[in-house]
Amino acid sequence: MTVQNPFYTPEVQGPYQMISIGRFELEEGEVLEDLQLAVSTHGQLNDEKDNAILIATWFSGTHQTWEQVYIGEGRALDPSKYFIVIINQIGNGLSTSSNNIDGAQAGPNFPKVRIGDDVRAQKILLEQEWGITKLFAVLGGSMGAQQTWEWAVRFPDSVERAGAIAGTAQNTPHDFLFTKTLIDAITSDPGFNGGNYTSHTEVEAGLRRHADIWAVMGFSTEYWKTEFWKPLVPEGQEWNFEEFSQNFLGTLFAQMDPNVLLSMAWKWQRGDVARNTDGDLAAALGRVQAKFFDMPISSDMFFPPADAQAEVELCPAAELRVIESTCGHFGLFGFETTYFDQVDAHLNELFSA
Amino acid sequence: MTVQNPFYTPEVQGPYQMISIGRFELEEGEVLEDLQLAVSTHGQLNDEKDNAILIATWFSGTHQTWEQVYIGEGRALDPSKYFIVIINQIGNGLSTSSNNIDGAQAGPNFPKVRIGDDVRAQKILLEQEWGITKLFAVLGGSMGAQQTWEWAVRFPDSVERAGAIAGTAQNTPHDFLFTKTLIDAITSDPGFNGGNYTSHTEVEAGLRRHADIWAVMGFSTEYWKTEFWKPLVPEGQEWNFEEFSQNFLGTLFAQMDPNVLLSMAWKWQRGDVARNTDGDLAAALGRVQAKFFDMPISSDMFFPPADAQAEVELCPAAELRVIESTCGHFGLFGFETTYFDQVDAHLNELFSA
Repeated sequence: MTVQNPFYTPEVQGPYQMISIGRFELEEGEVLEDLQLAVSTHGQLNDEKDNAILIATWFSGTHQTWEQVYIGEGRALDPSKYFIVIINQIGNGLSTSSNNIDGAQAGPNFPKVRIGDDVRAQKILLEQEWGITKLFAVLGGSMGAQQTWEWAVRFPDSVERAGAIAGTAQNTPHDFLFTKTLIDAITSDPGFNGGNYTSHTEVEAGLRRHADIWAVMGFSTEYWKTEFWKPLVPEGQEWNFEEFSQNFLGTLFAQMDPNVLLSMAWKWQRGDVARNTDGDLAAALGRVQAKFFDMPISSDMFFPPADAQAEVELCPAAELRVIESTCGHFGLFGFETTYFDQVDAHLNELFSA
Repeated sequence: MTVQNPFYTPEVQGPYQMISIGRFELEEGEVLEDLQLAVSTHGQLNDEKDNAILIATWFSGTHQTWEQVYIGEGRALDPSKYFIVIINQIGNGLSTSSNNIDGAQAGPNFPKVRIGDDVRAQKILLEQEWGITKLFAVLGGSMGAQQTWEWAVRFPDSVERAGAIAGTAQNTPHDFLFTKTLIDAITSDPGFNGGNYTSHTEVEAGLRRHADIWAVMGFSTEYWKTEFWKPLVPEGQEWNFEEFSQNFLGTLFAQMDPNVLLSMAWKWQRGDVARNTDGDLAAALGRVQAKFFDMPISSDMFFPPADAQAEVELCPAAELRVIESTCGHFGLFGFETTYFDQVDAHLNELFSA
């Protein structure tokens, strides 16, 4: 049974194409008989097919934020130069997911999907649709960064450049435990009913507690102390920080589908390129051939620069480029012009190499 | 109605005296007709009454950890030199609290208590019992640090030295939102029943979710990545990090009383010395006369060094002494000898000044 939710429509997320890559075997063993990926493209593929940039999406996100804040003429991600392909991750509510699949795999029975599944599916799609076998670059933030690392390790000959923002190659136990609190906030809601709700609104309390945890881990102490959120308060409203958290983050996450979030959370917890090398992280990171910029956000509480640095030290191809931001992990949403300026500078350097 | 729970007994927490200070008006307006504080003392008060050190307790804690890991002959907190008085905070389950008071103030109806109430009550007790009007030092960690700051601001003439570990003078909005997630983990459990449970075991799921959030915010990414917890696994057990979190933290917090935790959480959220100066934090911190060491823990996720530093910059009497630790806020529990060595060195310097 599909769950109706306007959040997962082109009206809310902006236009995208659904592209089928057919039958797809997942790493955990189950099969999606008709895997469809929600894709948004910008710019034109050149005749040499060497200007394609793949962007992978993050937890709870879609192609939309990338379009709104990272891509534009004159920006590093310039659609007049590059063919930019944003592929929504499997299970995110737009691509084949628990909320849009019929039959035995619907809802709480949607199969477990791994980062490696996304990357393999993306590779098939790029070849099938456009004959792209080598990417000018792969980029992503957070879970998109997990996919970026996976691309560079799994398909080292297919990635010339890679930029991972605010995400790691191997998820840390601390991050796993954090994600568990997000999961538990949803599943503990009696309205969740083991995933068998009929509308996400039945799980609103759990979704809002989930948002409350994001308010702590997604931002930073400086973000809240400096009232960085003030410009986001609608005109005429007087919100304090708690009201901002409720009205902005709470209302955002309350629109989402619980099973969709849980599918991505399970995947996020288990992101690990060392699955390609029998658990040897150094061996996995040693496989990277791409010029790789690893770009943690300075105030990120769960993908902190220290975790990125430890991985860069194991990856001869990678350079650490810390992005200074007050906004923690949610710096990704681009609340600061200084954030974009840094990202664009790093990407311009990466792309000119 | 009192709630029976063996966690809040001398058998579990170690011996303490119950000392009444009689009728006590709380800042929020309600009155405790017979406020009793649970007190543990070590050493002897000298004739000059100038060797008394007060220790204030943290969230969910009692006098016990201080006794087990901070106090001892040859340590900075040496009972052969000092008269050390540990006073359990109001509402912590040992001192007058929701779980041990009869009548209309029991359980979920226990009145709201503020950090300032604790400090005023402690001052009364010290004078009443021992005639102590000036403290050689006040110390505390976390909520104990909040009380330490409050002492130094509210009674500047009564505190010669002060040491605040891992806590701030004015709670930050980030920290407030973090504490809210702890509160919500408990209150969202259907077994909580608005605080009208008959046993804490009815709220076990909520208490364990509360513990899961502590696993993220109480430790650090390095703590989990380096498997710093391994020595705490009982012999013969094979636990992974998630099992450690469940079996150690989960089991610890599952023993506690929900209303007791909520009473402390409300107080913690609102710790603010600027209540003494009409909201002017700089004015409040300017009142401090004690030699003040502010000792944040390097990897603390919710009382981070940056927040401590910002307050030290407003407090001419204070010096910043960052304690290096892998264990985050829970460094307070003393898992590292390097932690003690640093604390003792700072306290020895503070005490010799």
